[in-house]
Amino acid sequence: MIKKIAKEPSTPLFPVPTVLVTSCLKESNPNIVTIAWTGIMNSVPPIVYIGLRPEGRYSYRLIKDSGEYVINIPTVALAWQVDYCGMVSGSKVNKFKETGLTPVPASHVKAPLIAECPVNLECKVRQVLALGSHDVFIADVLAVHYNDDVQDEKGRLDMDKIRPYGYCGNEYRLIADKIGTYGYSKKG
Amino acid sequence: MIKKIAKEPSTPLFPVPTVLVTSCLKESNPNIVTIAWTGIMNSVPPIVYIGLRPEGRYSYRLIKDSGEYVINIPTVALAWQVDYCGMVSGSKVNKFKETGLTPVPASHVKAPLIAECPVNLECKVRQVLALGSHDVFIADVLAVHYNDDVQDEKGRLDMDKIRPYGYCGNEYRLIADKIGTYGYSKKG
Repeated sequence: MIKKIAKEPSTPLFPVPTVLVTSCLKESNPNIVTIAWTGIMNSVPPIVYIGLRPEGRYSYRLIKDSGEYVINIPTVALAWQVDYCGMVSGSKVNKFKETGLTPVPASHVKAPLIAECPVNLECKVRQVLALGSHDVFIADVLAVHYNDDVQDEKGRLDMDKIRPYGYCGNEYRLIADKIGTYGYSKKG
Repeated sequence: MIKKIAKEPSTPLFPVPTVLVTSCLKESNPNIVTIAWTGIMNSVPPIVYIGLRPEGRYSYRLIKDSGEYVINIPTVALAWQVDYCGMVSGSKVNKFKETGLTPVPASHVKAPLIAECPVNLECKVRQVLALGSHDVFIADVLAVHYNDDVQDEKGRLDMDKIRPYGYCGNEYRLIADKIGTYGYSKKG
């Protein structure tokens, strides 16, 4: 017999992505912030979002004023840098310098791609929702970039080459074995 | 030297949750639909969303008309049922009956919890965004339930007991080893 325990309202939804978001204004150095409140909202056209706290977040002002950001998806090899970029403020630290990550020019936005992150989504803000603790920046994906060493022979992402990880509760956890492909239940 | 390959705009953001969403109207049987376009938007108050295609989705009408849904987080033991509930329509199949999953009354909404899913979020829609292929149902979390056998000694979720999994590209993948806890980069 399964017993349910009632809890206070919260957001125990997992796994969620843990990504590095880059942003900049013309006159500033680019910044990096770690975000887990992110996801896919729409397929056609491709629309994603990030949720960001206004206070104490240097990136908040950069994204609000520029209307642009880049979502950079890390691999497990970058786990330390990802945690670090969520712990320190870009108002005090040049995070590209401190982490050794490499900025690469994007094609549609001023914010740079992170070279070491194998997948990058260039995003242009279409709507901002102020929900309370966080502002949600809903954005169109203008372009996508893959590192050439994480593709399979058909040019698709190979998760075994990427070695992705995700955020579960307050833990970073490795993504491991493939269980199945979408639709496998119908194929017997 | 890292080489970037430009791709058409799309939504390669991963891992994302793969969840079972329940909904119902007073006069209908409850339905279950599988959703991966979901995430956390706001912490205080707790706000989440699901993205759902209007056409061909029985749950779309149930959620639109009732303004309520429950997010049920599966374990890897339910992977087949999760894929199946994304493949068939509730207009043709009673998915609770076909999957053997057990509905349990919720406390704040009419849609049921799924007993076998160790975490359940009762949600009340606060805003709907029609973005193109998908409508996004942004919702307040009214209550949360845990199964008592997935808690640690402090009443927190124990991911090793849950055995969660996520959606990466078009693959379901197991969540495995813990890499670190939020903030570990600052602790040496």
